[in-house]
Amino acid sequence: MDRIKRLIDLMDEKAFSAYLLTSSENLYYFTGFKGDGVAIVMSDGTVKLYTLPLYYESAVLHAIQGVDVIKTKTQDMFKEELTEELGKLVGDVGFDYMDAETFWGMTSKLRFLHLIPSPDIVWKLRSIKDEKELENISKAAAISDVGMEVASDLISPGVTELDVKAELTEELLRCGADRVAFDIIVASGSKSSLPHGGPGNRQIQNGDVVVIDLGASVNEYSADITRTFFVGNKVPEKVEKVYRLVEEAKNLAEEHMMAWVSASSVDRVARQFIENAGFGEYFIHSLGHGIGLSVHEPPRISPNSKDLLAENMVVTCEPGVYIPKQFGIRLEDTLLIKKDGVVRLSKAPFAPYIR
Amino acid sequence: MDRIKRLIDLMDEKAFSAYLLTSSENLYYFTGFKGDGVAIVMSDGTVKLYTLPLYYESAVLHAIQGVDVIKTKTQDMFKEELTEELGKLVGDVGFDYMDAETFWGMTSKLRFLHLIPSPDIVWKLRSIKDEKELENISKAAAISDVGMEVASDLISPGVTELDVKAELTEELLRCGADRVAFDIIVASGSKSSLPHGGPGNRQIQNGDVVVIDLGASVNEYSADITRTFFVGNKVPEKVEKVYRLVEEAKNLAEEHMMAWVSASSVDRVARQFIENAGFGEYFIHSLGHGIGLSVHEPPRISPNSKDLLAENMVVTCEPGVYIPKQFGIRLEDTLLIKKDGVVRLSKAPFAPYIR
Repeated sequence: MDRIKRLIDLMDEKAFSAYLLTSSENLYYFTGFKGDGVAIVMSDGTVKLYTLPLYYESAVLHAIQGVDVIKTKTQDMFKEELTEELGKLVGDVGFDYMDAETFWGMTSKLRFLHLIPSPDIVWKLRSIKDEKELENISKAAAISDVGMEVASDLISPGVTELDVKAELTEELLRCGADRVAFDIIVASGSKSSLPHGGPGNRQIQNGDVVVIDLGASVNEYSADITRTFFVGNKVPEKVEKVYRLVEEAKNLAEEHMMAWVSASSVDRVARQFIENAGFGEYFIHSLGHGIGLSVHEPPRISPNSKDLLAENMVVTCEPGVYIPKQFGIRLEDTLLIKKDGVVRLSKAPFAPYIR
Repeated sequence: MDRIKRLIDLMDEKAFSAYLLTSSENLYYFTGFKGDGVAIVMSDGTVKLYTLPLYYESAVLHAIQGVDVIKTKTQDMFKEELTEELGKLVGDVGFDYMDAETFWGMTSKLRFLHLIPSPDIVWKLRSIKDEKELENISKAAAISDVGMEVASDLISPGVTELDVKAELTEELLRCGADRVAFDIIVASGSKSSLPHGGPGNRQIQNGDVVVIDLGASVNEYSADITRTFFVGNKVPEKVEKVYRLVEEAKNLAEEHMMAWVSASSVDRVARQFIENAGFGEYFIHSLGHGIGLSVHEPPRISPNSKDLLAENMVVTCEPGVYIPKQFGIRLEDTLLIKKDGVVRLSKAPFAPYIR
């Protein structure tokens, strides 16, 4: 109930009489239950978890002590039952997420309370990881490292991108991941210039740049790592140059990362270095993102981010340069923010040049 | 542009001056682009697709002719740029999905237009599959069938649930799936009574009931299939009885399925049969759901569904009986609705009793 207590403190600051947890990740974070439902957290500490018959047995099994699990009648009735329950509340009620249609429907029926989207207070808590969470992310990172070592063995002329993806997916699961954190990216040849290039039947060839982006999840917590490989002995000068540029940008940004530093300034360090080298137009995404129960979560490390880094945040640092129709290079690690710097949780070697 | 034309017809019926496509599946369905962005469809047929620099190259490559791809400045600016563009519109503007916070923010800034959640008109189109879509789903179902045959070989005493999941995941990808449609469920022993039991380190044992629920995705289209296995030679009477009950309920419901039949009446056929046998309280979810680009999409086949079945819908039929702390049994196929009945797209044999 420790997390619930801290949520209530933040609710008090906003004068919320209650707060609705609707996302499955937030339900898991605050109640221990994995599945669909809605929890109503009252400012007096009462927590009612509404869930479908489908999830009821599992909710009773996994919900932490003090959470009152309530079985709703049917899927169709879920919103109606919940709206009725909310009708008993008054004042400002915060919530994490709701789609506009549900929000509109509820707001028109609940005349004595004011529903206020307020995911920020949840992120304030979730963005700072505790010991157990760090253990899970570290395990996920270690499994991802093994995946990357296997990738480095697998990538060779004649193998298809989809084969590499299939093998790596199995490897992560075999090594103890509950699941892959996201669909593994294997982008070879000129397709490496598409940051999210989905693997296809293309056979990897001599002379290819190959970007591999993968992550394992352990107990719902994810890691995220990217390495870029080259297939062949003779690395073209331009590839070598861009690789070193991205590597150096990443190192510079990481040196700049520590508690109390603004996320936007970290992005700027990497971006300006790449711009100064004349490749600014090809760095077409943010430098990084928080990671935990979600693969992408606050803080955002981007040019206009308003976030500050803080101790025990876990973030990625992933500069990339993508030259359309030629090749792309991205390097990414999962990092723990400490008072005076970062600790790399992912540790796969940077060995881009293979067979 | 055929789908866009039909969307415009439906927009006209609602007197929308424009419609916003925000979900990545809807963007793919209407524009061919896979990624994040927002498309504004005007009633005169103009389509503007706003996307981040990250996705721009891919959007230009994949968007169908007639779609104007616009690169927004940065992730941080996306909402601002979009809101500015929307400021040029007037009247009622429909959209598929938006989270309440974005909706609230936009509504307060856009005083001359009225944003109206209206996912229904998209589902009207997406729920009826065309030939190419049916081909993709059929391929996904065939790959899922192979997965299930492999499952039937794999399941034996001593193997862990996670091993089975790892092997099956790789198998689906090797057989040509782009990805698994959802995290494969392997629930053994008493855990089979949890409909969404996540696989763990539990070793499968003699005497176990094992529920396997898996699906492949091909070109973004998914199939969904469940089989229940028994490990051992001597099937307990109760397991046998419940298995036959679920199988018969499924057959009865499928016989009842055809165009113009109400989805709720199909659910009722299965539910009443299971209730009459005294197991009603253990059938704790809906009978089925539409499937396509989403694993769960309209129509809903549930007690209070208002949907009608129609020709060329693809749906699942998946009755289940879950006896807490004992065992659960679910059988599921992916089915194509025709004028006079259904065609089973998934065809894995029902062979529950193995070694």
